[in-house]
Amino acid sequence: MKIAIDGMGGDKAPQVVVEGAIAAVNEFDYDIILVGREEVLQRELSKRAHKKNKIRVKHASQVIDMWESPISSIRSKKDSSISVAVNLVKEKEADAIVSAGNTGAVVCAVSFGLGLLKGIERPGISIIFPTSDRGNAVMIDAGANLDPKPMHLLQYGFMADAYCSYILGKPNPRIGLLSIGEEETKGTGFVKGAHKLLDETSLNFIGNVEGRDIFTGACDVILCDGFVGNVVLKVSESLAGALAVLLKRELSRNIITKVGAVLCHSTFDALKKELDYAEYGGAPLLGVNGTCIIGHGSSSARAIKNALRVAAEFTRENVNEHIIEGLENYSNKGIQ
Amino acid sequence: MKIAIDGMGGDKAPQVVVEGAIAAVNEFDYDIILVGREEVLQRELSKRAHKKNKIRVKHASQVIDMWESPISSIRSKKDSSISVAVNLVKEKEADAIVSAGNTGAVVCAVSFGLGLLKGIERPGISIIFPTSDRGNAVMIDAGANLDPKPMHLLQYGFMADAYCSYILGKPNPRIGLLSIGEEETKGTGFVKGAHKLLDETSLNFIGNVEGRDIFTGACDVILCDGFVGNVVLKVSESLAGALAVLLKRELSRNIITKVGAVLCHSTFDALKKELDYAEYGGAPLLGVNGTCIIGHGSSSARAIKNALRVAAEFTRENVNEHIIEGLENYSNKGIQ
Repeated sequence: MKIAIDGMGGDKAPQVVVEGAIAAVNEFDYDIILVGREEVLQRELSKRAHKKNKIRVKHASQVIDMWESPISSIRSKKDSSISVAVNLVKEKEADAIVSAGNTGAVVCAVSFGLGLLKGIERPGISIIFPTSDRGNAVMIDAGANLDPKPMHLLQYGFMADAYCSYILGKPNPRIGLLSIGEEETKGTGFVKGAHKLLDETSLNFIGNVEGRDIFTGACDVILCDGFVGNVVLKVSESLAGALAVLLKRELSRNIITKVGAVLCHSTFDALKKELDYAEYGGAPLLGVNGTCIIGHGSSSARAIKNALRVAAEFTRENVNEHIIEGLENYSNKGIQ
Repeated sequence: MKIAIDGMGGDKAPQVVVEGAIAAVNEFDYDIILVGREEVLQRELSKRAHKKNKIRVKHASQVIDMWESPISSIRSKKDSSISVAVNLVKEKEADAIVSAGNTGAVVCAVSFGLGLLKGIERPGISIIFPTSDRGNAVMIDAGANLDPKPMHLLQYGFMADAYCSYILGKPNPRIGLLSIGEEETKGTGFVKGAHKLLDETSLNFIGNVEGRDIFTGACDVILCDGFVGNVVLKVSESLAGALAVLLKRELSRNIITKVGAVLCHSTFDALKKELDYAEYGGAPLLGVNGTCIIGHGSSSARAIKNALRVAAEFTRENVNEHIIEGLENYSNKGIQ
């Protein structure tokens, strides 16, 4: 398994990317291609013990910053670490790409560079949320496609179905459509259109779900447009953080609660771990003709290592083949 | 101050509505008109000591259930508690209306029955979120208008400005537009259109904000379409609940954390209170030609009492006059 990783992508790149790559090599024995400014990456590598024959550096002279416009930066910076990494997959020099860099730029570079799967019109970013029943739920799309058509949500349904079945070990996942009420008459015209399409598939479509169902385990997959998905993702991260701040402030009020806080320490740690996105190893960009895992901008070395692990599993399990298969079966049953 | 309250609205109606009404009379000396089935409401009233001259019952033979379609139920049930309450305001027999019933039906009944303010094309539901800096933030719209035009968000800006200035004691509130990035180039066409309009007003518009800014106190007002607002509201409620479940489960793991939990008890209670929507007293339906406060379906008696308090303040402070004034000043400055 050979994985290209964007060495310059993420708030703490290149340090944590190099650390994560070394950890993945040690744990899983992958071959890693670190893409980015050669001297910078070699310097980081030289600081740490690592298997030299398993990690090589591919030079890319340019870097796309987090704030840059996706389309124009991909167009103007042909030698960016993101574009060069995508080319490695295109040229079959690597099996998959991982980047914690500018999400929009990664989506553009991969969509244009590798193309989309047969039958897919738009890619979608899928993220995983922990649920209060000790499980998890996949939400797609988290921001690749802000103004989708109902047909795109149908395609997301098939992508998520394959992802859940072959990577998360949940065959025939319960798929919900995010709306503002359970009845199929609730929601925007877009949501009603998607409901109608999903209802006619062989997918395990359970109908509309609401914002309150995301964290309860009421469904395995939540379909939504990329605008709403991105807002939900950021609201969730922020609310968990805000609650932690409030809790900490209240707990430091007096000596009794301070003692209580010390005794509860292990609990708070366990909870933090349970909610930590780093455990889940990045968000697959689904629908593209290749494997691409997008890391959180603030990815830690552990998150990078886990993203590499997911990239390998995704490739090994031929998730893309299963997505195409599902869509083909659906189309063949169509009226046409 | 005379307030009409929907005696049949809410998951725990009519009991908690009657309790909340009695509490409001005792605390604030309002005159309350309880609207709904007379025999049911009189029976509830007779169970509790109350000032008989301050609470009267207005009979309404029909009830709109939580699951009923808003428009058709308002059309077919002319004698519903919601419609009769709205008529009391229309006939100047009451100054304001409070309901914890079917939100969509309340929005319809009030919008059609009382009409909209001059210059307003759509009403909006405004909700309050606690923020981690011990303040709060207003979000509008939480579900009255699922497919708004940019102009409606501009109008929401003026509504929220008046609400914050005259009810929440925050003159010249910082108004943010919910999007998926801070740059004005980020977001859907709808968001970009609203950004342009808001930028040209005298409002204290701070530009785009993200989902992560809602709970940090980064702005006082968050403008968004009703679909996104409703999802954010339900996600937030649910996530807070899910975190509580996780925390409780982890804390009951062993004797040390159990002791810790007992010592932290006061903290958890304080936190719960801080996050409790009941403290905030319901969500004003802004933009309508009258005062309407919508209670949460699961409103407690305290939430009902607080909703009545907000209804009185809203009426007393002439918030609607200030909304019209703000919009008129804006229009007069226009190019036309």
